Amino acid sequence: MIREHVRDLLERVANGELAADAALDALALDPVESLGFATIDHHRALRQGFPEVIYGAGKTPAQITEIASHIAARGTGVLVTRVSPDAAEFLRANLPGVELNAVARTAHVRGIEPPPRGEGNVVVVTAGTSDLPVAEEAAVTADAMGCVAERLTDVGVAGIHRLLANRGSLEQASVIIVVAGMDGALASVVGGLVRVPVIAVPTSVGYGASFGGIAPLLTMLNSCAAGVTVVNIDNGFGAAVAAARILHGATE
Amino acid sequence: MIREHVRDLLERVANGELAADAALDALALDPVESLGFATIDHHRALRQGFPEVIYGAGKTPAQITEIASHIAARGTGVLVTRVSPDAAEFLRANLPGVELNAVARTAHVRGIEPPPRGEGNVVVVTAGTSDLPVAEEAAVTADAMGCVAERLTDVGVAGIHRLLANRGSLEQASVIIVVAGMDGALASVVGGLVRVPVIAVPTSVGYGASFGGIAPLLTMLNSCAAGVTVVNIDNGFGAAVAAARILHGATE
Amino acid sequence: MIREHVRDLLERVANGELAADAALDALALDPVESLGFATIDHHRALRQGFPEVIYGAGKTPAQITEIASHIAARGTGVLVTRVSPDAAEFLRANLPGVELNAVARTAHVRGIEPPPRGEGNVVVVTAGTSDLPVAEEAAVTADAMGCVAERLTDVGVAGIHRLLANRGSLEQASVIIVVAGMDGALASVVGGLVRVPVIAVPTSVGYGASFGGIAPLLTMLNSCAAGVTVVNIDNGFGAAVAAARILHGATE
Amino acid sequence: MIREHVRDLLERVANGELAADAALDALALDPVESLGFATIDHHRALRQGFPEVIYGAGKTPAQITEIASHIAARGTGVLVTRVSPDAAEFLRANLPGVELNAVARTAHVRGIEPPPRGEGNVVVVTAGTSDLPVAEEAAVTADAMGCVAERLTDVGVAGIHRLLANRGSLEQASVIIVVAGMDGALASVVGGLVRVPVIAVPTSVGYGASFGGIAPLLTMLNSCAAGVTVVNIDNGFGAAVAAARILHGATE
Amino acid sequence: MIREHVRDLLERVANGELAADAALDALALDPVESLGFATIDHHRALRQGFPEVIYGAGKTPAQITEIASHIAARGTGVLVTRVSPDAAEFLRANLPGVELNAVARTAHVRGIEPPPRGEGNVVVVTAGTSDLPVAEEAAVTADAMGCVAERLTDVGVAGIHRLLANRGSLEQASVIIVVAGMDGALASVVGGLVRVPVIAVPTSVGYGASFGGIAPLLTMLNSCAAGVTVVNIDNGFGAAVAAARILHGATE
Amino acid sequence: MIREHVRDLLERVANGELAADAALDALALDPVESLGFATIDHHRALRQGFPEVIYGAGKTPAQITEIASHIAARGTGVLVTRVSPDAAEFLRANLPGVELNAVARTAHVRGIEPPPRGEGNVVVVTAGTSDLPVAEEAAVTADAMGCVAERLTDVGVAGIHRLLANRGSLEQASVIIVVAGMDGALASVVGGLVRVPVIAVPTSVGYGASFGGIAPLLTMLNSCAAGVTVVNIDNGFGAAVAAARILHGATE
Amino acid sequence: MIREHVRDLLERVANGELAADAALDALALDPVESLGFATIDHHRALRQGFPEVIYGAGKTPAQITEIASHIAARGTGVLVTRVSPDAAEFLRANLPGVELNAVARTAHVRGIEPPPRGEGNVVVVTAGTSDLPVAEEAAVTADAMGCVAERLTDVGVAGIHRLLANRGSLEQASVIIVVAGMDGALASVVGGLVRVPVIAVPTSVGYGASFGGIAPLLTMLNSCAAGVTVVNIDNGFGAAVAAARILHGATE
Amino acid sequence: MIREHVRDLLERVANGELAADAALDALALDPVESLGFATIDHHRALRQGFPEVIYGAGKTPAQITEIASHIAARGTGVLVTRVSPDAAEFLRANLPGVELNAVARTAHVRGIEPPPRGEGNVVVVTAGTSDLPVAEEAAVTADAMGCVAERLTDVGVAGIHRLLANRGSLEQASVIIVVAGMDGALASVVGGLVRVPVIAVPTSVGYGASFGGIAPLLTMLNSCAAGVTVVNIDNGFGAAVAAARILHGATE
Repeated sequence: MIREHVRDLLERVANGELAADAALDALALDPVESLGFATIDHHRALRQGFPEVIYGAGKTPAQITEIASHIAARGTGVLVTRVSPDAAEFLRANLPGVELNAVARTAHVRGIEPPPRGEGNVVVVTAGTSDLPVAEEAAVTADAMGCVAERLTDVGVAGIHRLLANRGSLEQASVIIVVAGMDGALASVVGGLVRVPVIAVPTSVGYGASFGGIAPLLTMLNSCAAGVTVVNIDNGFGAAVAAARILHGATE
Repeated sequence: MIREHVRDLLERVANGELAADAALDALALDPVESLGFATIDHHRALRQGFPEVIYGAGKTPAQITEIASHIAARGTGVLVTRVSPDAAEFLRANLPGVELNAVARTAHVRGIEPPPRGEGNVVVVTAGTSDLPVAEEAAVTADAMGCVAERLTDVGVAGIHRLLANRGSLEQASVIIVVAGMDGALASVVGGLVRVPVIAVPTSVGYGASFGGIAPLLTMLNSCAAGVTVVNIDNGFGAAVAAARILHGATE
Repeated sequence: MIREHVRDLLERVANGELAADAALDALALDPVESLGFATIDHHRALRQGFPEVIYGAGKTPAQITEIASHIAARGTGVLVTRVSPDAAEFLRANLPGVELNAVARTAHVRGIEPPPRGEGNVVVVTAGTSDLPVAEEAAVTADAMGCVAERLTDVGVAGIHRLLANRGSLEQASVIIVVAGMDGALASVVGGLVRVPVIAVPTSVGYGASFGGIAPLLTMLNSCAAGVTVVNIDNGFGAAVAAARILHGATE
Repeated sequence: MIREHVRDLLERVANGELAADAALDALALDPVESLGFATIDHHRALRQGFPEVIYGAGKTPAQITEIASHIAARGTGVLVTRVSPDAAEFLRANLPGVELNAVARTAHVRGIEPPPRGEGNVVVVTAGTSDLPVAEEAAVTADAMGCVAERLTDVGVAGIHRLLANRGSLEQASVIIVVAGMDGALASVVGGLVRVPVIAVPTSVGYGASFGGIAPLLTMLNSCAAGVTVVNIDNGFGAAVAAARILHGATE
Repeated sequence: MIREHVRDLLERVANGELAADAALDALALDPVESLGFATIDHHRALRQGFPEVIYGAGKTPAQITEIASHIAARGTGVLVTRVSPDAAEFLRANLPGVELNAVARTAHVRGIEPPPRGEGNVVVVTAGTSDLPVAEEAAVTADAMGCVAERLTDVGVAGIHRLLANRGSLEQASVIIVVAGMDGALASVVGGLVRVPVIAVPTSVGYGASFGGIAPLLTMLNSCAAGVTVVNIDNGFGAAVAAARILHGATE
Repeated sequence: MIREHVRDLLERVANGELAADAALDALALDPVESLGFATIDHHRALRQGFPEVIYGAGKTPAQITEIASHIAARGTGVLVTRVSPDAAEFLRANLPGVELNAVARTAHVRGIEPPPRGEGNVVVVTAGTSDLPVAEEAAVTADAMGCVAERLTDVGVAGIHRLLANRGSLEQASVIIVVAGMDGALASVVGGLVRVPVIAVPTSVGYGASFGGIAPLLTMLNSCAAGVTVVNIDNGFGAAVAAARILHGATE
Repeated sequence: MIREHVRDLLERVANGELAADAALDALALDPVESLGFATIDHHRALRQGFPEVIYGAGKTPAQITEIASHIAARGTGVLVTRVSPDAAEFLRANLPGVELNAVARTAHVRGIEPPPRGEGNVVVVTAGTSDLPVAEEAAVTADAMGCVAERLTDVGVAGIHRLLANRGSLEQASVIIVVAGMDGALASVVGGLVRVPVIAVPTSVGYGASFGGIAPLLTMLNSCAAGVTVVNIDNGFGAAVAAARILHGATE
Repeated sequence: MIREHVRDLLERVANGELAADAALDALALDPVESLGFATIDHHRALRQGFPEVIYGAGKTPAQITEIASHIAARGTGVLVTRVSPDAAEFLRANLPGVELNAVARTAHVRGIEPPPRGEGNVVVVTAGTSDLPVAEEAAVTADAMGCVAERLTDVGVAGIHRLLANRGSLEQASVIIVVAGMDGALASVVGGLVRVPVIAVPTSVGYGASFGGIAPLLTMLNSCAAGVTVVNIDNGFGAAVAAARILHGATE
């Protein structure tokens, strides 16, 4: 729909129905809605193929709810990450149809139509139980992006046979997201076992010289398994979006 | 072939032709060749679908050449990265059929059969001329992995219309590798323009507070464009392998 | 007035009405008022052209109020930054005429005469909604310094057309303050679009590898757009003072 | 001229003489010249009002010379920074009309017309003799940008009366660039003495806990004199461009 | 007294009254009193000339009180630093004769005899009001060590004449302790003005790129004024002990 | 027992009673029990000779209790570290037979049979009273691993004779664990005094430039006493396991 | 012999043959030999059971040779580490009986009697060929300390079956030294496979975000395999001494 | 003499012989001599009591020699630190009367009159032979400042009895400078043994996690011996000036 609108504008310029300057203004400003404290970009769904996403940290519950309501009103679906318990309560009360996930700290309002299906599946592998919130954020996001997400939990390398016992699951994955804190070594071992894309998420799980996730971040950036890519510490959301970029590309 | 060999071993155990212990030994040790200072893993081609790769830094020209010769002798192809000028000279003289690329600092001996073709193409985008060696390493590696690589050079965000002028190339890419030093901002802008996977490579180009590439590394890890993934500083090789993991997955 | 007082002192030395030592003492000590825990410098208004400013963090509500009262009593105006909610309550009750801004965390008592007007205007651009408190501190400070401040909110580079759609505002600015956390890439893009001074403020918005604002700080220091200058993380106040130094210079 | 060309293109679209797509292509690609390893942006002069600048580090002497020649051929003037002694020799031999400055490590070819004059003057203040290369880079750049640059050398705060003795020069400046390594304290003292814009450049002069310039960088970012802005370590060029942005703004 | 005891022991060994092993045991263990969770070293007063000091952070109020009581019982005086409000309450109730200082966060029980007087005086100079707790810790400690402490408050370098106006106090000091956060530049300026020992204490006052006091710590370590020495961030206590080491040395 | 089970499986493959694939599955999956949010590895006792250990941080009291109950049910004993006060309460109420240690922050359920005894003893040496929680974690862990642990408390190097007075205890130790924060210098002195293994544990005790334990960590890694090894900051548990690895090796 | 000498001294004190002061002097100074630029501690062999070791970096070839000659003259054996090629040449010419190892960068003169044999063996495992110099330093040192050293090379975790194929060697080791750069993940996997002490040596092999060995150092300090201990980056020597402390303890 | 000159100026103002402005100019500019690239401050000798000092790093041999010649011509003596071998050669040839010290990397021209004698002595203690250049810089500087310097070499804490054997020298010192790299632990032990001022100098001796001297710097800043002060890494010069400030204060 939006694509048609744009084509229409350009044709009207060609037909002399619209001045060049006016067309430029229309093109740029129309699908951007300003709330004063936020500028909603309704174009993004078109450009990137994702539902609109709100980063919840640093915004008040009221701000989150107002932005989410405006997006949901267009019917395109909206996902909120980093939802504090307070914000979750506020959203439950004020945003009809919201699905809250306390472990993943997400809030989700589905769009009128489901997102297009990505090809294949994502397997989210975690090194330990403490990594679950990040892994769950990844799984919820993947689902919101139209991708099938499976979970493989607590298979860190200190007990390597736990991982090897699950080699079957790994080999049937289209994309693997590895979530690990502390030494972050799981990404290298998984990266060496499979041929598919591996996205590593360092977590802030640990203490002392883990420095809030720097240790596994560096481990993963230096992975001796070639072709492992990395996202920000605790960024389960970003890893899932990266997986969706891959699986939706495979669809087309 | 190797797969058949393994199946054969296991069946001989089942038939009582081979003791369990003996089979385990055979299985593990056979395809690994020891040179004393190195343990070549001929299995890897099977496991990961890549030609064998040697990281040239920290190895002597003689060591590199000996490892490369043993691999090349199997006919599977071998790629050497971080080839110093000295090592390049030594390889040119002692490794028949080697292709040297001075900008990318690579040496390549092609296998008897070409690698399987990846689906689609990789576009390697660089922010500035000084980033070219890393970008070229990515392009050479992609080619060695059976992927088509295109180049888009010197389109950093300080002159944003240079990038926008090339939006067509970006939109036709299957995977985009963004190579940038200094502020590393190019990855965020590209990540916001396209829907396909974007792999960001920070480079050590810059001075002062770029801290040898930490600045663009952090920029890319914190990209406000969702789903951008990152590899190590100057790791053009790793970015290309990540791209190959995606494109070969799309093939299957 | 103060200038006259000083000239008078020096002339009395020349006339023999005042010993050299006595003049030195008078000159230095007169306009500095000591509260025991603080030394108020009433000279600064003369020297720098700004109202007096109090950095509120690390001071008790009572200390802030006492210092502010002494300054306000001279009629020169006073601005307090980093006002905690407790201090705000205390100031509201005890400092007549105070204007509080909860988002900017500022308290302001205007002087008897308005500050001299700076030439032109400051545009405060923010990458995201979470950057608003820092941007608002900049805008309030600019106003207190006699400068017109405009706001352009939530135009981060992940959706580059949101920014390009506002190119008009940017091009009519005299000075631009760019406030951004996470990747901080907005400063480079804006710096490349305009010819006027651009002052970049990294914010502590983000998580993980943003390291409390180090990531955008480094991005901005390494900006590939030449001539972008940077202030401390979250230092909206400092950016506005820098802008005022420019606009008041242009006045003269 | 370029502006007219663009207007012309858009009017031809309005007149039906040109298809929308064709106009877009023409608009973006025309003033960008590709050398394969570099994309020259002849538009930048228009957009930012500076001569074109080449960052010399990480480029070969031949690359620098080729880029510089293409720019110089347009008659708009070109400045090269971070010129190694080898590159300087090569440029001297191959780039007619080049002016080399060994202390500043710059190469400059002046444009056919001089750059427009900035209003007022820049005073470049250095803390010590070892900071001179960075200060000289700033002075040469300011000159290339059409600004008058004065120098005040070796007036660090350990002998505060050296600085106070030059208070007259400081008070007559339109913009001050403070270049200092080690403790970087000079920026705070100067910032407290004057009302005009102060741009601080930390240098890598020092040893041990100066960490290659991190110490003065942090000092300057935390300056207790409000409104001091900072550029990258050793970035004399950037400071001068920031000054030019201010002085040319004052012109208009 | 203790000295005599030791000499006595050694003479008894020489006289055959005591076996060598027994003497060694006696010598080492006698003046050390064990509380299970702490080993009190009553020797230290002899060895270093200071009253015993307890670092209060990380100890429970009960632990602090028990250790302090045992020391106070010997009559040698005891100083506790980093006393939390809870610990202060507990000490007030349970340690007779304790003097509490809420700003300095110290608790002090004076010994039966006053400490020997140090020669001369210490001047504690602070850059800003927020640095007062650290400065006060220094002043209280100096007093406990028998040194006269004077205070000079809120004379940071952004208003350099505030400092110059107090040059007299500085020139009459025997030792100067400079307490400053943010840019820490005050230490360099003071170090350049005087010939006496200058001990710099960086404070954690500031935000963003002050990194909890790293910025002024580095500034002070890199001071361009020769011979300025530095102690840990917020370590007013250590600076005062260093001053006492100097002033007591001068006494002898 | 488990060892026999595995041998049995392999013999059944050799006898044709079991297909190779089935044996592989059985081997890997049997002793791993999945709780959904955790994968318990009952094999580990066999592989490493330790009771199972749960890292309590980042897990809810309910999760900890459920995992601990499943392990305890097998009779092999379980140790929980980093037990928060809330978790301790929950465990006291819901895990029969648990032994809680508030200083060490541990919970321990002993196995049906005591662990095998390690040869010799571990001496846990602490620099100061504030290091006790980490030291106690080490001592409790050593006990759980079947090792005798002795404690030597508050013998930091600032009073070197306190340490020398205890040289006897040090010389009779089989392994020494040195627990120290702040300057961490104790490890080097102890390492120079004895010939047995020395394991150094840096603690986060300190402030300012101790950077949460980085200072003693670096001290210990750079120990001028050869052969001192180091574990993570505050990792008393890990140090004790390392000691147990040594003492149990000596047993065999 | 030295032990007897000391006992003799003490008995002479008990017998009145020697004054206490004189005995103290004799005891302390005798076995320490001063070369002006160095203080040789011939006692150390007694105290720690190792041959004397010289750290070669930062000493001139002449200094190294002079120190080594004085030690060798006593017949106790001497090991030099970090021997530069220049120093190696100088030692070869001037130190009779020296054994040089170019890969390990060591020089060794054996003592008159061989060192006492340690119980068991050390297995030195390396992740990659580039880690060999550090591993070889460990092996040479272990040999000099009387320990049997075996080598297992190039078995990094990216090809996990290379490691699993060598599980036999690992299980027969008394102590394992793991030498790895880049991601350092090998230590965690080995630590999970065996019950014996594991000493991890991070190496500076790698580039970019390995930060000269910080990445594997942090990985190893955060190892999820309990009881892995760590030494300084590239410190093969220290790891071997730690192993010798363990194996010699097991001997007694 | 200079003092008289200044008094004279002020009296002429009082007498009307000199205008106030003229006096100010005269006062400030007279004793400062400008060489274009340097501003020599002949006042400093008056203000601080030291000979003039030139920091040699980052200056050309010609620059150093020109500055040194101008100072030497006044007869006040000059000390150059960080003299490169090239600069040393140049100075030997062009600066009559220069004394060069290759280990300390200093050049010294003595003044016409010897500096005033400081009271007492400085003992410079080093942990190892590799720390000698820094220690020697301290000793040469102390001598140039009129202080007696003694040396105590290679007494690091790994062999604690080497240090204890020299306790006599330590106890007779007026000030102690401790020079140590690697773990830097020597400062804490010495600080605990003596009552006089202890100035700690971390050195860049070491490798890996010593991070160019950060490790001993942090150790020393966190010293558990109270009142130890610290100077920059490798700053033997600064430590000696700090000692001279103490010993000259004791003189007066």
